[in-house]
Order: sequence, then structure tokens, then C-alpha cells
Amino acid sequence: MLWTPAEARGPRPLVLVGHGAAQTKSEAYVVALARTLVRHHSMAAVAIDGPVHGDRRPAGHVDGSLVMLEFGQRWADDPALTDDMIQDWRAVLRAVQSLDEVGAGPVGYWGLSMGTILGIPLVVAEPAISVAVLGLWGLTGPTSARLAGDAAAVACPVLFLVQWDDALCPRQRSFELFDALGTRDKRLHANPGAHSAVPPEEFLATAQFLADHLVPAEHQTTAGAASA
Amino acid sequence: MLWTPAEARGPRPLVLVGHGAAQTKSEAYVVALARTLVRHHSMAAVAIDGPVHGDRRPAGHVDGSLVMLEFGQRWADDPALTDDMIQDWRAVLRAVQSLDEVGAGPVGYWGLSMGTILGIPLVVAEPAISVAVLGLWGLTGPTSARLAGDAAAVACPVLFLVQWDDALCPRQRSFELFDALGTRDKRLHANPGAHSAVPPEEFLATAQFLADHLVPAEHQTTAGAASA
Repeated sequence: MLWTPAEARGPRPLVLVGHGAAQTKSEAYVVALARTLVRHHSMAAVAIDGPVHGDRRPAGHVDGSLVMLEFGQRWADDPALTDDMIQDWRAVLRAVQSLDEVGAGPVGYWGLSMGTILGIPLVVAEPAISVAVLGLWGLTGPTSARLAGDAAAVACPVLFLVQWDDALCPRQRSFELFDALGTRDKRLHANPGAHSAVPPEEFLATAQFLADHLVPAEHQTTAGAASA
Repeated sequence: MLWTPAEARGPRPLVLVGHGAAQTKSEAYVVALARTLVRHHSMAAVAIDGPVHGDRRPAGHVDGSLVMLEFGQRWADDPALTDDMIQDWRAVLRAVQSLDEVGAGPVGYWGLSMGTILGIPLVVAEPAISVAVLGLWGLTGPTSARLAGDAAAVACPVLFLVQWDDALCPRQRSFELFDALGTRDKRLHANPGAHSAVPPEEFLATAQFLADHLVPAEHQTTAGAASA
């Protein structure tokens, strides 16, 4: 899924959006975020399905619990899962940046939960990515050792989200992952509520954060004025 | 110290600014914050010296370490310290709101570190305060039991700041105080660095947060557009 402004001619900033487990590239919040990036900040956005998710599955196999179970098994058993996803993202990045309406502008990454599990290794592997929104995950699960190592290699600015009452990933584990991020240019935003209860204004803040880093100051629309 | 826009006629929003220990009402960051509130958001701001601080001291007795020591002793020995400061703040609020250039508009509180130690009880005691910026402190020190009780009674929206590498107040203690805040309308922003290393953009975010809650939407200047 690719979103660009109606009048688009590249090069313009591009954000790669990684969805969470048991979701898809056309999840409502992914679409809403992409539209904010396009309409408020004149950036492009692209989303692809994660491993065993969305259009990668046989038609009709979309039960969320089943997808979660299969992802959990593959995640535990297959070290190539993350590497395959990185290759997919990098191929998508090359393909999308070859389009006239996107072009070779600066690149950001946005991904929470599974989007962070798979996104931190991507941010480290893909040098074009110069800013990232991460969070809703921590140093836990089958790839936590790899995740800690990759986190230490993250060198770009990061906004990291935590849900204070997250039952899927206890906040202490998330704090450990934030702590492990190698970049000094990082900040953590925590909100009350469950894993999936990130408030709307925090989504807007993530879009503003990406725009502050990807959109040249002279091209910032009114939405960017608060960062001045 | 009172700051108002040049063209000021009330009523307009007012922010009470509480400084940190060993500082004064005319500390550089207090002045910078007040100017941001006035110039970017057309609010008024007022700051007074804390107990044993600034103009409350004999002339010339301004050594920071000595002030810190005296505050620590008074804080431990004198339960009236907090109550006296609350009475001072409430008298200042009445006096300032009686001025034509301020008037009886909505009221916010901004105070970090000692400004939170003394500010949480004030926010609970003064019903006019409808939003607060707090942080750089936690459930520790001689008044931690009172602070926990008062925190539970805080009912207004709160932005709470944490410095990730704070040696004066370890982050776990700050997390406990954030957790204890009774309001559900709260969010925590953490940045790397020491107690005093709150980054400039976080100061701007606190001003924007206060404006979002105190300034009617139709009066928001361009700086408020990002919150739309």
C-alpha cells in the first residue's frame, strides 16, 4: 500500500510503516497514520504485510488469534524470519523510490509492537533510514538477544512509545529496550492504558516527529510550526 | 515575577511556574518558559521564590549548595513548609487575577523537581488549576507519604517529565509517582541525560501542552496547529 499527495512529484520524504501482530498493511490506524503523513506533512508512506500476515496468507485465513499463534511459532523457530522481512522492506524501498511521485528523498520508519520487533533490525540494516518511531515492545521473546544487539546499533533519532498498563509487554521490559537503544537522540512517551490503547494525539505526535526530521524546515506546513 | 503580552487585557490563561531547588523565580529557564507562554501562546505567567529561596533569603545568601542544604533541613523538619507555600501561591493567584491584564481566566501549573514536590499539593488544594506540568521527582524524600496521598487526588490533565539518567531522583521512583497520579489523563515524556538536562524541545512541548488545555481552540496561534 502506497500513499502519496495528489499533486505528487518526487523527491519527497518517505515513511515505511510496519503494522502489529495479527494486523495487516491496511489496518485502520495504518491508513489513518499514512493519511496524516500525506495530508499534514506532504510525505509519502508505504506499508507491507508482515510475515504470515495479510496477503501473504491463503485467502480467507485471517483469524487474528491463528495469525498470532503462527507468527509466534515462526518467530521462535526461524531465524530467517527477520532477515527475510528486511529484504522485503529494502526491495519495497528501492521500488517505491524509483517512482516519479516518490523519488529518492529522506526515509523514516514507523512500527510498534511486531513493527518494532522487525523494525529495529531493519533500521540498523538499511542506511537510508534516518529517523524511527518504535515501541510497544521490549527485551522479551525469542529474538530478545538479537533485538538487544540491534538496538545498540541504532544510531538515528528515535521516538519510543510505551503503554503504561501493557499486559503483552510489561513496561519494565520496554524500558530495558529503550535503555538499550544506542542513539543518544531518543525520547520515550508513555500513556496510560493497554497495549492497543495508544491515544490519537500520540499518533499525531509521531507524525510530527517524523516530519520534524524528514521535511526541510522551509517546506513545513502549519502543522510543523510547533516545532519551531 | 509576572509576564503578560504587551497588548494584554484580561481575562487570559495564567500559568504558575514553580522553580527547582537552589534556583530562583528569575532563573534563566523560568524566564525563557514564561516568554514562550506569553509570546507563542498569549498567556500570562507568574513565578515566586520557593521556601528559603531567592528574595526570601537575607541579601547575598545565594550559594546554591547552602540553599539546597537549608531546604532539605526545613523540608524534613517542618510540615508547614508545604502548606505555607500553598498559601503564598493562592494569595499570588488572587492578586494576579485581580489585575486587568490577567483577569480570571483558566489556570495551569508548571513545576519540576522542587516545583513538583511543592506543586502537587498545590494542584490538589487550588481548584482553579485545571492542568499541570510536573516531573523530575518521585516517591522519595521526607514528604513522600504526603506526596503519594496528594498525587492520588490529582484530577486534572498532567504531562510528567522524567530524565532517564537522573541521579538526584532515580527513574524508578519517578515512575512510582507517575503511577500514583490519580488522573487517567496523564502522559510521561522521558529524555536521556541528567536531572538538569531537559532538552529545549521538551520545554516547548510543555508550553504547547498547557496551551492546548488553557487556550480556546479559536484563539490558538500557529504554534497550536500541530495539536489540531
